[in-house]
Amino acid sequence: MKEYCGVFGIYNNPNAVYYTYLGLYALQHRGQESAGIAATDGNKIGYYRDFGLVSSVFKSSVLRELSGFIAIGHNRYSTSGASDSPDNIQPIVVSYKYGQMAVAHNGNLVNALELREKLEEEGSIFRGTTDSEVIVHLIVKSKKKKFLDKLIDALVRLKGAYSLLVMTNKKLIAVRDPWGFRPLCMGELDGSPVFASETCAFDLIGAKYLRDVEPGEIIVVENGAISSYRLPETENCPRSQCIFEFVYFARPDSKIFGKSVYDVRKAFGRRLAKEHPVEADIVIPVPDSGVVPALGYSQESGIPFEMGLIRNHYVGRTFIKPDQKLRDIGVKVKLNPIPELLEGKRVIVIDDSIVRGTTSRKIIRMLREAGAKEVHMRISSPPTKFPCYFGIDTPTKDQLIASNHSVEEICKYIEADSLGYLSLEGMIEAAGGNFSEYCTACFNGEYPFNIPESVERQAEKK
Amino acid sequence: MKEYCGVFGIYNNPNAVYYTYLGLYALQHRGQESAGIAATDGNKIGYYRDFGLVSSVFKSSVLRELSGFIAIGHNRYSTSGASDSPDNIQPIVVSYKYGQMAVAHNGNLVNALELREKLEEEGSIFRGTTDSEVIVHLIVKSKKKKFLDKLIDALVRLKGAYSLLVMTNKKLIAVRDPWGFRPLCMGELDGSPVFASETCAFDLIGAKYLRDVEPGEIIVVENGAISSYRLPETENCPRSQCIFEFVYFARPDSKIFGKSVYDVRKAFGRRLAKEHPVEADIVIPVPDSGVVPALGYSQESGIPFEMGLIRNHYVGRTFIKPDQKLRDIGVKVKLNPIPELLEGKRVIVIDDSIVRGTTSRKIIRMLREAGAKEVHMRISSPPTKFPCYFGIDTPTKDQLIASNHSVEEICKYIEADSLGYLSLEGMIEAAGGNFSEYCTACFNGEYPFNIPESVERQAEKK
Amino acid sequence: MKEYCGVFGIYNNPNAVYYTYLGLYALQHRGQESAGIAATDGNKIGYYRDFGLVSSVFKSSVLRELSGFIAIGHNRYSTSGASDSPDNIQPIVVSYKYGQMAVAHNGNLVNALELREKLEEEGSIFRGTTDSEVIVHLIVKSKKKKFLDKLIDALVRLKGAYSLLVMTNKKLIAVRDPWGFRPLCMGELDGSPVFASETCAFDLIGAKYLRDVEPGEIIVVENGAISSYRLPETENCPRSQCIFEFVYFARPDSKIFGKSVYDVRKAFGRRLAKEHPVEADIVIPVPDSGVVPALGYSQESGIPFEMGLIRNHYVGRTFIKPDQKLRDIGVKVKLNPIPELLEGKRVIVIDDSIVRGTTSRKIIRMLREAGAKEVHMRISSPPTKFPCYFGIDTPTKDQLIASNHSVEEICKYIEADSLGYLSLEGMIEAAGGNFSEYCTACFNGEYPFNIPESVERQAEKK
Amino acid sequence: MKEYCGVFGIYNNPNAVYYTYLGLYALQHRGQESAGIAATDGNKIGYYRDFGLVSSVFKSSVLRELSGFIAIGHNRYSTSGASDSPDNIQPIVVSYKYGQMAVAHNGNLVNALELREKLEEEGSIFRGTTDSEVIVHLIVKSKKKKFLDKLIDALVRLKGAYSLLVMTNKKLIAVRDPWGFRPLCMGELDGSPVFASETCAFDLIGAKYLRDVEPGEIIVVENGAISSYRLPETENCPRSQCIFEFVYFARPDSKIFGKSVYDVRKAFGRRLAKEHPVEADIVIPVPDSGVVPALGYSQESGIPFEMGLIRNHYVGRTFIKPDQKLRDIGVKVKLNPIPELLEGKRVIVIDDSIVRGTTSRKIIRMLREAGAKEVHMRISSPPTKFPCYFGIDTPTKDQLIASNHSVEEICKYIEADSLGYLSLEGMIEAAGGNFSEYCTACFNGEYPFNIPESVERQAEKK
Repeated sequence: MKEYCGVFGIYNNPNAVYYTYLGLYALQHRGQESAGIAATDGNKIGYYRDFGLVSSVFKSSVLRELSGFIAIGHNRYSTSGASDSPDNIQPIVVSYKYGQMAVAHNGNLVNALELREKLEEEGSIFRGTTDSEVIVHLIVKSKKKKFLDKLIDALVRLKGAYSLLVMTNKKLIAVRDPWGFRPLCMGELDGSPVFASETCAFDLIGAKYLRDVEPGEIIVVENGAISSYRLPETENCPRSQCIFEFVYFARPDSKIFGKSVYDVRKAFGRRLAKEHPVEADIVIPVPDSGVVPALGYSQESGIPFEMGLIRNHYVGRTFIKPDQKLRDIGVKVKLNPIPELLEGKRVIVIDDSIVRGTTSRKIIRMLREAGAKEVHMRISSPPTKFPCYFGIDTPTKDQLIASNHSVEEICKYIEADSLGYLSLEGMIEAAGGNFSEYCTACFNGEYPFNIPESVERQAEKK
Repeated sequence: MKEYCGVFGIYNNPNAVYYTYLGLYALQHRGQESAGIAATDGNKIGYYRDFGLVSSVFKSSVLRELSGFIAIGHNRYSTSGASDSPDNIQPIVVSYKYGQMAVAHNGNLVNALELREKLEEEGSIFRGTTDSEVIVHLIVKSKKKKFLDKLIDALVRLKGAYSLLVMTNKKLIAVRDPWGFRPLCMGELDGSPVFASETCAFDLIGAKYLRDVEPGEIIVVENGAISSYRLPETENCPRSQCIFEFVYFARPDSKIFGKSVYDVRKAFGRRLAKEHPVEADIVIPVPDSGVVPALGYSQESGIPFEMGLIRNHYVGRTFIKPDQKLRDIGVKVKLNPIPELLEGKRVIVIDDSIVRGTTSRKIIRMLREAGAKEVHMRISSPPTKFPCYFGIDTPTKDQLIASNHSVEEICKYIEADSLGYLSLEGMIEAAGGNFSEYCTACFNGEYPFNIPESVERQAEKK
Repeated sequence: MKEYCGVFGIYNNPNAVYYTYLGLYALQHRGQESAGIAATDGNKIGYYRDFGLVSSVFKSSVLRELSGFIAIGHNRYSTSGASDSPDNIQPIVVSYKYGQMAVAHNGNLVNALELREKLEEEGSIFRGTTDSEVIVHLIVKSKKKKFLDKLIDALVRLKGAYSLLVMTNKKLIAVRDPWGFRPLCMGELDGSPVFASETCAFDLIGAKYLRDVEPGEIIVVENGAISSYRLPETENCPRSQCIFEFVYFARPDSKIFGKSVYDVRKAFGRRLAKEHPVEADIVIPVPDSGVVPALGYSQESGIPFEMGLIRNHYVGRTFIKPDQKLRDIGVKVKLNPIPELLEGKRVIVIDDSIVRGTTSRKIIRMLREAGAKEVHMRISSPPTKFPCYFGIDTPTKDQLIASNHSVEEICKYIEADSLGYLSLEGMIEAAGGNFSEYCTACFNGEYPFNIPESVERQAEKK
Repeated sequence: MKEYCGVFGIYNNPNAVYYTYLGLYALQHRGQESAGIAATDGNKIGYYRDFGLVSSVFKSSVLRELSGFIAIGHNRYSTSGASDSPDNIQPIVVSYKYGQMAVAHNGNLVNALELREKLEEEGSIFRGTTDSEVIVHLIVKSKKKKFLDKLIDALVRLKGAYSLLVMTNKKLIAVRDPWGFRPLCMGELDGSPVFASETCAFDLIGAKYLRDVEPGEIIVVENGAISSYRLPETENCPRSQCIFEFVYFARPDSKIFGKSVYDVRKAFGRRLAKEHPVEADIVIPVPDSGVVPALGYSQESGIPFEMGLIRNHYVGRTFIKPDQKLRDIGVKVKLNPIPELLEGKRVIVIDDSIVRGTTSRKIIRMLREAGAKEVHMRISSPPTKFPCYFGIDTPTKDQLIASNHSVEEICKYIEADSLGYLSLEGMIEAAGGNFSEYCTACFNGEYPFNIPESVERQAEKK
């Protein structure tokens, strides 16, 4: 499962471009496929975008050429668009009747295809396949006079997840969809407003976190002033913050949806210990996402926490996989067990989720080979049964093992001695909230609105 | 002076992509800044574009991935668009209401800015700054039903030079503007129609030259059939084939405007010899463009032809220029004289044109240092006095030495013993035609239609 | 502090090259500057070496071209040689009287300069500046007939650390210096003997760890047979295994010197808790090397372990540092605290060592800014007071804060509420051994033999 | 056929590195595989070398880092060494007893293997496979005290072609072998002595040609003084300047062996016209090397010279060759005929040599397809029958069509109407010399000394 974007923006700062670089750097975990920065000096928007990690896309010569006082940036991992077209790398920069505009978008629209078809119907031309391009067209198409009105005109037509940064030569605008699927935070650095998907970006540049951009809120920064607007109908949209951000995507040192990811993630672990206790000698995480819930489980259960699996952090996209003739290297490239620790032990292993089950099975086999006497798997979220249409790269329902197997069957498949998932109620409670705040569709199929059949069908075919 | 594009297209050939690669390769002289190929398998248009020479942009892995039976390609040297934006590399590929379309364009529109403003007025969005993007928008905007009618709708609004290849998932269309500024040839390879800026591309792939696409003609290849249409008002557009293609741009082994470039270029030299005879010992060219007219001059005058200046063909964009402290390397990086040949000789040196005069002066000084007793410069075209608005990269009028200096003054400035330009009449005659066929505006300022003042002003500011 | 090499070798395996690639991959933490593999098919040694990480140096095309049944590989971080010369990338491959030979070396010779001078005196020619080149010359210079005797002839002249793999077209030889400074392990994969700096390389390829190459041992693999020899005088060399490997360098999932790094590192933490207890609310590590001792400290003290600092694993060499005008980004690029966890807490922070003290100070300030009420620093090794001459990249004595400051002074400098170092005795005990097994010179200055003054002087000048 | 090196050196110039860059640039035609520059500031020799053209190997950042007052450079096309090892890129830089030394070598030693074996016998170690490394070892091995004596000690043992530049931290030394196979020129730039393979390098930097380094001469530049020495036995070595340099390798604007290449090459053409006249309509060259002899042929015969074949100068190593399924692109990638010129004509086509005959056949077929009525091939050198052991990359005797076919047979094979080779006597006369000056072994097999059988055998196996 892979989340697909990180966004960052800053207004009126002489080092806007460099801070955006740092912000993207801190948000690298949200998208490793491509990166881009657009910046304006008040007259002209310049930009640089390419495939690769932030640190390889941007050289100091590139940063020097991108001068400007307002900048937005984007990290991307593609789920909706064809990943190999340079036309899809964000921010998208266009010129139109009233000047230039740059857009960086995190999320996934459910009605993008429908909107796109309508736009094409009306004569719009598309270069790439991103939702962002749809949004840009809608803005430009609006008959309204003021940019803000155009933007609202466009946004009310969108259905789905969008945490959006829009930049013109004078303004920086941050928007979060009325459901609030994806996080978007607002901070302040030396008097400059800054926006980021997660607060870890603020920490790196030394900015202060102020508050979240609210679901349905449009924050316009212009002429040094900050104004806030609310999208109409926002109150009719059930708040649907993606609880999976807490489970897996967000960095543990970030605050999102107003809460510490570390705290919530550990609470998941504590609750999991209460719901699924088991006698064992050690608790170990599948690093990195399992570390914090494993700490919670350990503290609640009193069973010692150990780093029983060591992760190799040099694994990259360029790793050369062995021929099939060779033994299955598989998960070993990433994870290696500590036999001395596991030998003869009853082991509880904590992971954030099970997708297909194959990796869990490999890990459990590896732990047994390293000497574990018993392996009890505990998952810090409920069974993932339904696809996400809002920006998380889930496989089709067919491939989600939990969508067509019972917990017992999964336990057997992954060859665990026992398997326990965090309950949905437990999860919501641990997140300190209630069902009305979060989207839990991937666990219970309750999408905040009806998903068009065409989108479902497309998801099935993936 | 630099011409700005080469185009190539081929229909219904299993090796369409590779032949397009070869075609661009043969047309490399028409644009060395970027290259691109778009190809369709009938369902989807794929493409690859990048900065660089054809041979560095396309690796075999790239060619393999670009499968298709129809393909178009483009080499580019930018004059109108900002050269550094990847959004400007052609072919442009877009999707719109009725599918996908790819466009490759050679030429320069005089009313591009005006059209662009109108389009933006009506809500169009632009990613780059090329004329091609304007054309694409006009096509899509048309209310007509059939693609051909849309295309015609768009084309009749264009003023200026366009030799155009348009590809959809089913069709390949070739168009030449009603004035016929830029060349565009049609050929045939194993039954597949092929189009190219110059016939040298046909020679490389073994295609047979059939005829030129006529000024104002639209050739549609679809379902294996070739249909020809004529743009309305074509007969009212004075035929304005760019005579400078013969002077400088086209490869001597090409046929353009139905004539052999080699033949015409040599006829220029012969005529030059008649118009400006001088007693001398040898005739030498400034290679490469001066070689053929120098042969003509030599044959007409009976004065022996010699390669008195040797060109270093390894000169590339990446050559590191010396600090100003060092002596002026200047033209020597490209050209080196043969002292043994020049020593004590009266030399006629043939070049195709004089732009600013500085290079000519350096060459003449170099020849004298190498021992030449007299240096007589002969130019195989008339004095270049006026800017080109149709796709040739001329400097502003200010910088064109002939626009504000007499031939005598130029002769003195370049330090020649004598200077002779081919007369306009002589040129036209040598080209075997008459004034009504060619655009000679860069020599006599007689543009085939009024140039908008805004365009003139913009050209002045360059 | 940076260790400088990892080595890997495998004999008689059809996938020797790919396994060596994997082995280097697992040993990436031991050297990230350059990587190389040499392989032989029995007739000819081929090789490929370049600057960069294993995964960027080796493409699959490179691996395919490097065929062979015996292979050795090397990762490098330079301490002695000039890091920027490609002539220094290992393995070194040479041809000489009796054929070809490849050498990969982990360690640092104390008498390399002296030997080099003598060799030059006798007519030797050097291409680079590595110790390995010295070793190669000594081997070739030997008057002995058999390769093994030549090798021994060379080795007895070496003083210092060397874990060495030597490959000819028929043999693979592994050697560890008589003091045993650096680790070198022997394993077996499908009947093929394998050697690696650490066992984590065996785990990745599925090889079985057999035993360490003993200090002073020479293992020759040839014709399918394994023979073991002992360097003369080995028993007179005090065993001096680098205890810093346990503290910092080795991967926690490796076994070196016959012991689990994880176990020893955790025992350091437990012992540290006994030696320097303090009342506190949480124990947090400086990741990654502080994690395991922090677990030990936590378990011994009963104070909860938390991941109070999150590490960004995308930090690479190419990170663009800010201008000095900007605020100090410093350690924040790598580490970010969890304020919710630290707020109002008394924090024990565990690191493996303190070099200059500046990083510790930054971390402590960061923790306080994040809300920590008290910060107690605990170091899982004794004060680092003396430079290492055996392959660890320590700064000069001047720069080692502990070499000229008391613990109290350091505590004050790093602005900790308290500071406690593991005692040397405690460390040795925790390592389950006794002083006669380990080199502890960096802590107590007791080098296993006299360091030539010239080497000391050179180290001072660094 | 490809020559294999160009060398350049300059002493005591503040821009030594940049001038060396320019020098190599001008000598690019002598080797396009790799390039390198070594420079000294009087204390330390730095260097940079890589595969590729001069303009791609050297970036301005590289040139800036390579400071120095003495510099030597080298372009390479490999014939003897394995071309793919970076250890073979020159200049070779080594350190030895008395300091550092850099060596750049153009030529090929006949006894390199034998010397190498002896050196290895005595304990020498080799990193690559170049002759230059052998020379370096011989220098260092010498028991003599002074560097010059060491050098001479080494040189007297060499048999074969070597135009050599040797640089220490204080000296620049130029040597030409006693036979004088390869050219080496001496010039002067602002008081700085400069050396280059050909004078075209002097022209580019504005240096004055002074004279050739004489066969057997050693020129030492040190402390601002120039001293000349003669190798013993030089007078017993028959002068053997490579006449093929005139035929093909040298640039026509160079002077080598004291003569203008242009003059000699044209004289070849004139003589060829006398020896093999034929009634025809036009004379055309195979560009580029056939241009000058074709001019000579034309002037002598009175038959008009035309550029009937146009060369595409963008052809590079990276050109993607077509699959075999496609038609043979072959020579067309490089050459394209002018049909208008050839149609119905009797054509004399001039090339410098015929190696295998396949290219000639393709050219002749191409000319006929373009309409030529008759094609008469004239070669501006005698039949190439014997391999070169002195630095020219000839195929084995087997593959040299002239070594086992009569002129008539060749004529038939290449499908020419007639074929005429320049006679050996004619060639020597045209070169204004006599047999005692030139090596003509590739034409008549008269090598200046006996070629060791082992070398012959090795050449056969190629």
